[in-house]
Amino acid sequence: MKSSRLVLSMFLLLLTLTCAWNQASKGLHAATTNNDKAEISALLDRWAEAFEAHDIDGIMANYAPGDVVVAYDIGPPLQYKGKESYRKDYQEFLAQYDGPIHVEFRDMRIVSSGDVGFVHALERFTAKLKGGHQSDMWLRYTGGLQKMNGKWLIVHDHVSVPTDFESGKALLDLKP
Amino acid sequence: MKSSRLVLSMFLLLLTLTCAWNQASKGLHAATTNNDKAEISALLDRWAEAFEAHDIDGIMANYAPGDVVVAYDIGPPLQYKGKESYRKDYQEFLAQYDGPIHVEFRDMRIVSSGDVGFVHALERFTAKLKGGHQSDMWLRYTGGLQKMNGKWLIVHDHVSVPTDFESGKALLDLKP
Repeated sequence: MKSSRLVLSMFLLLLTLTCAWNQASKGLHAATTNNDKAEISALLDRWAEAFEAHDIDGIMANYAPGDVVVAYDIGPPLQYKGKESYRKDYQEFLAQYDGPIHVEFRDMRIVSSGDVGFVHALERFTAKLKGGHQSDMWLRYTGGLQKMNGKWLIVHDHVSVPTDFESGKALLDLKP
Repeated sequence: MKSSRLVLSMFLLLLTLTCAWNQASKGLHAATTNNDKAEISALLDRWAEAFEAHDIDGIMANYAPGDVVVAYDIGPPLQYKGKESYRKDYQEFLAQYDGPIHVEFRDMRIVSSGDVGFVHALERFTAKLKGGHQSDMWLRYTGGLQKMNGKWLIVHDHVSVPTDFESGKALLDLKP
């Protein structure tokens, strides 16, 4: 009797510990998910800050290394493959502007699970072109992210404005 | 002695069972991930089939219900919010074409984890406009997905062509 009661106690103890462990990991998971959103949001803030300052290394620090990045940018070609070619694209874009390029995000949504996430938002760029013209345009932005070695990085960008099929024009003056 | 050996055996048995369970759930998780990619790929095939056939219900069956969907489409406005307004956008787009709109995907990448995924690809639309003109254009597509009640659904679309800033034109004739 004594021995079977001991076994039962041991069993119940283990059951309790297992349940407690499960609860703890669930709590941990939920916390991670919220953390992930905060981390992705912080990444976008760092990106905007670096972009405003024409800081190409600061911008590129948010992207996955090597050939992982595939970007559909506002300008041609249809796609950029790999971090190096996208870096050149950024440099050419930044070179058109004089001084800070201010970025404002609107209607941002961040969705993530495990080590995959995506984000989309409208973004307003206000800056002075080198010719002196003040540029102010609203773009649509979508980003695809992966958590690599514990760090969120962008693996895909899509930036655009809508097209007017009648005139063939890119609609650069739309407002939300 | 006998009782403590029994306790030890019981403990080891539980430890083994716990480890086996962990391994089993890891295997299950890996299988689910592969399955998820296959399910997202199948969703895009169903979408393309319905699109080709001008089947608006078949198209919309792939989208999350209510106000969840936010779409940045090839045409204006900057964004569509909710399934109903996006449905009207699709209907207006389809009405411009006579007969099937063939879709070819290229360089598609599907990334998913848990209940979140995204996909991007170049897509070629070949179709006959109602005026008789044969349309053939390459677009960039990004989709954001969530698994809801065990079913993958699109919650975000982004479709575009690049912009030529010099001329202000939408680049509708680029090829990959």
